[in-house]
Amino acid sequence: MLDRHPTAAARLSEIVAAITDNRSTPAAEIEAARRRIAESDGEVGAFLRLAPQESLAEAAASGGPLAGVTVGVKDIYDTRDMTTEHGSPIYRGHRPVVDASLVSMARVAGAAILGKTTTTEFASLDPTPTRNPHDLDHTPGGSSSGSAAAVAAGMVPLAFGSQTGGSVIRPASYCGVAGFKPSFRLLPTMGMKTFSYTLDTAGLFAATAQDLALAARLITGRYFGGETLTDGNGLRIGVYRSAVDDEVEAEMQGAVTEAARLLDRAGAAIVTVEEPAALSTARTCHTTIQGFEAAMALSGEYRRHREQLGEKLGAILDHGATIEPAEYDDARRTARIGRKAASALFETVDVLIAPSALGPAPRGLTSTGDALVNKLWTLTGNPVVNVPGLVSGGGLPLGVSVIARFGKDALALEVASLLQALIAAPLDVRT
Amino acid sequence: MLDRHPTAAARLSEIVAAITDNRSTPAAEIEAARRRIAESDGEVGAFLRLAPQESLAEAAASGGPLAGVTVGVKDIYDTRDMTTEHGSPIYRGHRPVVDASLVSMARVAGAAILGKTTTTEFASLDPTPTRNPHDLDHTPGGSSSGSAAAVAAGMVPLAFGSQTGGSVIRPASYCGVAGFKPSFRLLPTMGMKTFSYTLDTAGLFAATAQDLALAARLITGRYFGGETLTDGNGLRIGVYRSAVDDEVEAEMQGAVTEAARLLDRAGAAIVTVEEPAALSTARTCHTTIQGFEAAMALSGEYRRHREQLGEKLGAILDHGATIEPAEYDDARRTARIGRKAASALFETVDVLIAPSALGPAPRGLTSTGDALVNKLWTLTGNPVVNVPGLVSGGGLPLGVSVIARFGKDALALEVASLLQALIAAPLDVRT
Repeated sequence: MLDRHPTAAARLSEIVAAITDNRSTPAAEIEAARRRIAESDGEVGAFLRLAPQESLAEAAASGGPLAGVTVGVKDIYDTRDMTTEHGSPIYRGHRPVVDASLVSMARVAGAAILGKTTTTEFASLDPTPTRNPHDLDHTPGGSSSGSAAAVAAGMVPLAFGSQTGGSVIRPASYCGVAGFKPSFRLLPTMGMKTFSYTLDTAGLFAATAQDLALAARLITGRYFGGETLTDGNGLRIGVYRSAVDDEVEAEMQGAVTEAARLLDRAGAAIVTVEEPAALSTARTCHTTIQGFEAAMALSGEYRRHREQLGEKLGAILDHGATIEPAEYDDARRTARIGRKAASALFETVDVLIAPSALGPAPRGLTSTGDALVNKLWTLTGNPVVNVPGLVSGGGLPLGVSVIARFGKDALALEVASLLQALIAAPLDVRT
Repeated sequence: MLDRHPTAAARLSEIVAAITDNRSTPAAEIEAARRRIAESDGEVGAFLRLAPQESLAEAAASGGPLAGVTVGVKDIYDTRDMTTEHGSPIYRGHRPVVDASLVSMARVAGAAILGKTTTTEFASLDPTPTRNPHDLDHTPGGSSSGSAAAVAAGMVPLAFGSQTGGSVIRPASYCGVAGFKPSFRLLPTMGMKTFSYTLDTAGLFAATAQDLALAARLITGRYFGGETLTDGNGLRIGVYRSAVDDEVEAEMQGAVTEAARLLDRAGAAIVTVEEPAALSTARTCHTTIQGFEAAMALSGEYRRHREQLGEKLGAILDHGATIEPAEYDDARRTARIGRKAASALFETVDVLIAPSALGPAPRGLTSTGDALVNKLWTLTGNPVVNVPGLVSGGGLPLGVSVIARFGKDALALEVASLLQALIAAPLDVRT
C-alpha cells in the first residue's frame, strides 16, 4: 500500500521552493508525476484520464508561482482539454468549451492540470471503483474519491474536490491527507457541476495544511494564512460535542481527545463546547435543502435520462421532487438561524475541533461512508480543515477537523498546521 | 411598428385558459407563434434560432399546465436541442448536453421552448443587432434584448432573461412589457452562464404582471401571488427618492408621479421614502463586485480567447483582474449592510415605486442604455416588477418599478398587477 510507493510526490511547498531555487524544473515535476501515476494508479484507480501532451508541454513552459505543481482535478470541474463526465454516462465524451474558473486560475498561476480524478455520480453517493491507498479493500470516501486517493498515494501534491455534505473532509480523513473546505463561495465554483447551490463548496487536498494555504493563496491572490504557529499559547480551542457524537466510533473520539491533549500540552486553552439546539436542528435540514436544490439542478438529467442515473442519486432526486417549496423555505430559515448560532460559538473560542468522519474508512467499495459529522459545517458555510496523522488500531487514518468562524479560513489553516506538526513530532505523539 | 403586428400573441393567462377549455391546442399555439416570428422578426431580430421540429412536436403532444405557452429563451441558458452561444463567437456551435434548470422545469410544465433570443455578449454590455419593436431606430435595452423585444412584438407570451445590473427591468421598460426580477436565487440559475454569482438573477418577461405570476408559479410550484387587488385600500406605497434621481429624465420622473397619482386615487397611502446613506453607498459597490466576480467567472474565456471578447466586456474584465480581494471583501460588506437597510425600508411601506430606467429607450443600437437605477436592487436581491403602459411624448414606453421586501415576490407582483390595471383603465389614465 502506501509504503510501497517510495517515489511519492514531494510536498507542494517543497516543489515551489525547488522550482524557485532552480533545483527542479516544471517539466521534471510533470514527468515525475506521470511516472508515479503509471506506477501506482493501476491498483488505486484515482485518475480517469491524463492531460494531452500539448497541455503538459504548455504548462511546463509557463511560469507562475505554481509552476511545476501537478494537480488532479475531480471530474465535475470543466476542463477544455479533457472530457468532463461528472461520473455519469449521460456526459460520456463531453468536452467543455472552456475550463472551470478554479482550473483556469490554477493554470494562470502556472500549475499543470495533470488529469481528471474519479467522482461519484454528480458528486453524490453512488461509488467509484477507486480504492483507499492505505488499504485497497477500503473505500477512499467520496464524493471526491480520486482526488483524495491521488494525493494520499503521493501521485500529485495537489488535487481539487468539492463538498456538498462531507465530500472533501471525509475522504481526506479516510485517506490520511490534509483537506480544506473553505468558507462558502470563497473559491469559485463556476464550471463545477452544481448539485446543491447553497451547499456546493470547492475544496482542496494536499499533504499538509500548510500546502493547502499556499496553494489557495497562489491560485486566488487571497491571504490564507502563513504565520507559523510554533505553539498554542493564546489560542482558545473548543472540543465540539455534537448531538450525533453517539454515532462516532471510539477510535475517532480518541483521535479528537489526542488532538486536544497535544494542543493543551502546546499551550492552548482547551474547553468543551456543547452543540446549541439551533445547530443540531440545522443539521437535520441538510437533506431537505440538498434534495430540493438537486431536483432543480439536475432537472434536465432527471427528465431526459432517468434510466441512466445511479440508484442512490435516483432516490435522492425522486424524493427531492416531492419537497414542497414551503418545506424548503422553512429549512433555509432554520439553516440561517444555525449560521448565526455557528458564528456565536466563535465569540468564546478561536477554533473548534471535531471528528472528520465517524471512524476510519469502512471496508468495502459499495459505500463511500457517512457525512453525518461534516454536513452541518457545509450548511453553515464555516471553513474546515482536515488534519491527518493519527491512525486507528488497524493502521487506517483518522482525521481531525479544525473549524473556524466564517471567513476565518487563514486561522483554521494555521491552527491545522500547528496540530499537524504536533501530531508528526515524535516526542509529542503517544507519550 | 407594434401596431403593424395584428397577430400578436394572446396573453399567457388567456392561452392557458383556452387550452384548459379546449378552445385551442398546443399545436395551434406553437404554429401561431412560428407564424408571428416569420412575420415580424425580420425587422426586429429578437430570435437567433428556432427549436427543431421534433422538439416542438414533443411539446405539442405533452400536457401540463403551461401546454401551448411558447417561450423565447435568452441565449445564455443551455438548451439541449439548440446551440447556446452566450452572444460570443467563443461558443459558436456549442450544444449543451442538457437543458438549464429553468428551461427543463418549463418543459416539465408543458411549455414549448420555441427558440433562443439574442443576448449581449455574456449578458454584458456589447449590444446585439436587435431593434426596439416600438421604434426600430431605438435600442430594446440589454442584456436580455431579444427576450424583451420578442414579447413586446407579440411573438411569444413568455420569455426568459437574466439581470446582473438592470438586464430584465431596463429592457422591459424600454420595450413596454412586464418584467420580473425575482428575489435573488428564487428562480434557479443552473445552466445559465455565470457573469457575477452574487448578482446574476434569472427573470421573466410577459405582457402583464399577472402573466408573470402565473408563469412563475406553474414553472416552480411556488406561490407568486394571484390575489387580484381591485383597489389600493390598505396599501402603503413609498415613492423612492434616490441619490441618482438627478440623472433620471423628466418624462420618467413624470411616469413615477403618474403611477403614484393612480395608486393614490385607488386608495393607497403614498409616502415619500428618501434613500438611506447605506443604500446610496451600496449602489457604488456594484461595479467592484461585478468586476471581481466576472474576472473569475470568465477566467477561461479571458485566458484563452481574449481577442474574441467585445470591447466593453474586455474592459470590464481587464479592470476586474486588477481588483484586490480585500477591495472586493469590503464591497461585499457594504452590500450586506445595504441589504439590511433595504429590509428596514419595508418596515414602514409595503412596496416602493421607482423609475425602471433613466428615460425611454435611447436612439441608436450602439448602447443598450444605462442600468443606474436598477443595479441597487440587483445588489440587494429585492424582487422588482416592471409595470408597462405609460408612454413618453415621443410614443416610447416608460416603465415603473414596483419593489418589495426580499422574499415578498407575490406582493410585488400583486401591486404591479393593480398598477398595470390602473394605467390601462381608460377612465383613470390621462385625466
